[in-house]
Amino acid sequence: MSYLAPVKDMLFVLKELAGIEAVAALPGFEEAGFDTAQAVLDECAKLAGEVIAPLNVEGDRAPSTWRDGAVTATAGFAAAFRQFVEGGWQGLQHPAEYGGQALPKLVATPCIEMLNAANLSFALCPLLTDGAIEALLTAGTEAQKMRYVPKLISGEWTGTMNLTEPQAGSDLALVRSRAEPQGDGTYRVFGTKIFITWGEHDMAENIVHLVLARTPNAPEGVKGISLFIVPKFLVNEDGTLGARNDVHCVSIEHKLGIKASPTAVLQYGDHGGATGYLIGEENRGLEYMFIMMNAARFGVGMQGVGVADRAYQKAVAYAKERVQSRPVDGSLKTSATIIHHPDVRRMLGTMRALTEGARALAYVAAAHSDLAHGHADADVRARHQAIYEFLVPIVKGWSTEMVNDVASLGVQVHGGMGFIEETGAAQYYRDARILAIYEGTTAIQANDLIGRKTVRDGGAVAKALLGEIAQTCEALGQAGSAAAQSLRAQLEKGAQSLANVVDFVLANVKRDPNAVFAGSVPYLKLAGIVLCGWQMGRALLASQREFEQDLEFHGAKIAIAQFYGEHVLAQAGGLETAILSARGDASVLALSEVQF
Amino acid sequence: MSYLAPVKDMLFVLKELAGIEAVAALPGFEEAGFDTAQAVLDECAKLAGEVIAPLNVEGDRAPSTWRDGAVTATAGFAAAFRQFVEGGWQGLQHPAEYGGQALPKLVATPCIEMLNAANLSFALCPLLTDGAIEALLTAGTEAQKMRYVPKLISGEWTGTMNLTEPQAGSDLALVRSRAEPQGDGTYRVFGTKIFITWGEHDMAENIVHLVLARTPNAPEGVKGISLFIVPKFLVNEDGTLGARNDVHCVSIEHKLGIKASPTAVLQYGDHGGATGYLIGEENRGLEYMFIMMNAARFGVGMQGVGVADRAYQKAVAYAKERVQSRPVDGSLKTSATIIHHPDVRRMLGTMRALTEGARALAYVAAAHSDLAHGHADADVRARHQAIYEFLVPIVKGWSTEMVNDVASLGVQVHGGMGFIEETGAAQYYRDARILAIYEGTTAIQANDLIGRKTVRDGGAVAKALLGEIAQTCEALGQAGSAAAQSLRAQLEKGAQSLANVVDFVLANVKRDPNAVFAGSVPYLKLAGIVLCGWQMGRALLASQREFEQDLEFHGAKIAIAQFYGEHVLAQAGGLETAILSARGDASVLALSEVQF
Repeated sequence: MSYLAPVKDMLFVLKELAGIEAVAALPGFEEAGFDTAQAVLDECAKLAGEVIAPLNVEGDRAPSTWRDGAVTATAGFAAAFRQFVEGGWQGLQHPAEYGGQALPKLVATPCIEMLNAANLSFALCPLLTDGAIEALLTAGTEAQKMRYVPKLISGEWTGTMNLTEPQAGSDLALVRSRAEPQGDGTYRVFGTKIFITWGEHDMAENIVHLVLARTPNAPEGVKGISLFIVPKFLVNEDGTLGARNDVHCVSIEHKLGIKASPTAVLQYGDHGGATGYLIGEENRGLEYMFIMMNAARFGVGMQGVGVADRAYQKAVAYAKERVQSRPVDGSLKTSATIIHHPDVRRMLGTMRALTEGARALAYVAAAHSDLAHGHADADVRARHQAIYEFLVPIVKGWSTEMVNDVASLGVQVHGGMGFIEETGAAQYYRDARILAIYEGTTAIQANDLIGRKTVRDGGAVAKALLGEIAQTCEALGQAGSAAAQSLRAQLEKGAQSLANVVDFVLANVKRDPNAVFAGSVPYLKLAGIVLCGWQMGRALLASQREFEQDLEFHGAKIAIAQFYGEHVLAQAGGLETAILSARGDASVLALSEVQF
Repeated sequence: MSYLAPVKDMLFVLKELAGIEAVAALPGFEEAGFDTAQAVLDECAKLAGEVIAPLNVEGDRAPSTWRDGAVTATAGFAAAFRQFVEGGWQGLQHPAEYGGQALPKLVATPCIEMLNAANLSFALCPLLTDGAIEALLTAGTEAQKMRYVPKLISGEWTGTMNLTEPQAGSDLALVRSRAEPQGDGTYRVFGTKIFITWGEHDMAENIVHLVLARTPNAPEGVKGISLFIVPKFLVNEDGTLGARNDVHCVSIEHKLGIKASPTAVLQYGDHGGATGYLIGEENRGLEYMFIMMNAARFGVGMQGVGVADRAYQKAVAYAKERVQSRPVDGSLKTSATIIHHPDVRRMLGTMRALTEGARALAYVAAAHSDLAHGHADADVRARHQAIYEFLVPIVKGWSTEMVNDVASLGVQVHGGMGFIEETGAAQYYRDARILAIYEGTTAIQANDLIGRKTVRDGGAVAKALLGEIAQTCEALGQAGSAAAQSLRAQLEKGAQSLANVVDFVLANVKRDPNAVFAGSVPYLKLAGIVLCGWQMGRALLASQREFEQDLEFHGAKIAIAQFYGEHVLAQAGGLETAILSARGDASVLALSEVQF
């Protein structure tokens, strides 16, 4: 099997770090405790490993194709999608009343990781559909929900997000697509949308496009954008499909990676206007879109974790098999498998430490989301919501940055074979490269982290988390082992760097925004490194507690946690220096354009 | 023009950092001073920009093709190669008596950078030919030199290096190809060689393969390998081409990048044996091959610099053109070109700082090579040779690691467009990825840095260089400006980290080789960061001296040098921590195979 979901590691995080029992104590989640999670994960691991992962290479070699406006998915994808939806996986975290399984996000999250590890291109389709479902559930009318959500959950239809236009990428203020009211409650939508993932395909009978456009006389900028449902086929009153709508796929992109996932250019209204239905109120489209985007951003973070784990698994398998050179310590007189070589160990250790840290933080974030939605106490809900929102840009930004390094190390472990496409390591390197770009580049995540998540509350959440990290450091200090001492030292230093940077951001964001935002991505990375390091500290403590139960498993967890401190957390000081040294009056900020 | 060679920056390095006047004072190089260098670089810039760079995209879209054993290069490549050799560029640094230009390596090096920036796939062909020429000149008989070198310099023939076999990559001890003496001074060669760059093509009438193989009864391991000339077509006594030799290209690889460069599988001796001619003595093949490899490794380092610069140029052009979002400091009420955004500045600054640092170190190394060959005083020659040899793995390893980051940032600056192949940024990302792998992976370079370059001389060269860095720190301390103070602080810290690591390596390499080699690549990176930082310090001092001559140019140099300190040198401490924390009895070194 080319992908074996790390169910044991995932369950360790659910139980020891993300607190699945607290989530299962929430109303409605009584059945969703550890045992359920284990059963769900085991089942999903089978689907991912046996059905979806084998299509990954084929999707890269024979991508989706466009012809005369129609897109044909890679052979096998449609059948696998059928199996996916028939197993109920699209509805995993959606309400039972619309046909979903109503499981916690915490249980859905490892499944999303598995699907993305198995086949990033494939998993994008359900990911976008999840986003459309969330937006409809939040802002749609009851009739809209009833009309669209069950079909999206059943997989008869899929969903898309239509934000980007040629001139409007990160900058949605520049959106020009327009929607003209027809007096009958419907609108006619006109415009060109680009980079629409699974914007056209043959895996489902209908596609529900959620589209940002401007109504006549709407205010300029982001405050004049509305959100519309534009189905590929209009839907009759009885739910059957009606006429083909005036939205057409004029081309798909030739991309570096995720080649099986068709990235469509969609043309709206070339034949009189595409019929669209307003979601919620006019001019509040960006707000609704952010619901989709936050869900999607978290999901993209999981894509990073998933691809990183897949790349790690492949590298480990090769390192155990490839024989080359004698060990440097003279322990063998013959050439050895390369996993004997210290630098290969370092690479594999780095890959695994980064992956495990990012996974842990993401699952912890998912638990906060569940508590934010389901807890009985409003104050508790608000606190968890604030933490979740703080973590989303970090989960998205850090997981997708680290996966580039992990996938690159995966290529490197393979040596020359890594550069040969048949080997497969290069596909992860190519596929992964989109993750730090779409659903908001790392810089966009970092702006969010600074503006909405750090400055707006005066650093309250950041400081609360630093307080929790201090407690973990204290526990590590009392834990005795050399591994715990080493990690405590690095985690303390890293937390101090993060605290200094938070203070710097708060003190200077008004006075010298250029200096603060020049350090935005380093700040996000620092936060990712330290918060994941915190989880590695908690993992180390848990594994020391449980050590006798499973020496091999927990021994590895402890070693990787220590390694994380020495190799990843050790980078914190350098990031702090880079951030704090930014000054508006010097360095590259001051160069004129011609000097570049 | 898609590539504009940075001639002004290159000349700055030649003059201010690499000491071209000292090289021009060497016997035979009297004509090769600054003015000559300027003329040569200007001419090469034209060829690279106008003739070779325009073929780069086409080579990626329509790679070299294989059919029935013959390889056809991308359309236009053969004609461009003709223009290249007719201009005398293949012979740039080779002796006049064989038709070369006999210019210093220091002058050839910027030209090599340009060619590789223009078109990595194309430039690989002359690079390999350079290696073959060097090996022949060093170890060949006079007859062999006269027979092959003039044709290689004229470009009528090209050269290859045949080391790798399916089971023997980094580990040449595993080479199995064999050579049977025929009693007439020739050998019959049998075996399979893989990953042979430009191993078959239609750009020249003959290909001179230099092949590692074992003679009967040769000792096992690397001490039983000999080096053979195996021409594609046998060469008659009068120099005309004779029979086709028994070496055949059975396939070429489908690769992540450098697609126009055919990577051949060569089969020797399937029809009775390929006729080969021993170079030098039996069983000394590895020694001779290292001559080629050292030249080639330095050249691959320049490939890293070249691709990094190309990626930087493309990113700058896009950043000046793409309009998206308002400046964070409120300085514009409308959306601005993205070069206004601090994070884009940070990315461009990082790309440029890494590129300029690596370029400077490489050119300085080239000057040491010239002095090592040409100086009148044997002690001076030996000192320069030792420094050059110390620098080669760093130039190779660091330039090729940093280019992955630079090319990745280049993609990131382009946002979603970066992931679309038509944009072109992704090609640099793909092409660059081979550089840290071929001619010895970074780990192989790092082993060389530790074993042959640090431990063998008891750290003498490393410490001598640290002494020179201390002098630069002192000069920066006296230079007054805030930029100089900032860089001095970071350079001092970085040098201290490097000094600590050198001591650690020397003290522990015997006692705990696993621990030392677990830090081998971090050591190489640390050395690269610090030594390039040293050059940035020297550049800053030179630009402060020359500032009044050209405010714009030198102002940028000073800003980038400061930025290098704050963003790149600042990483030194983290690397030191990672290296010094390695212990054989803990962390990933101690994990059993099943724990991975």
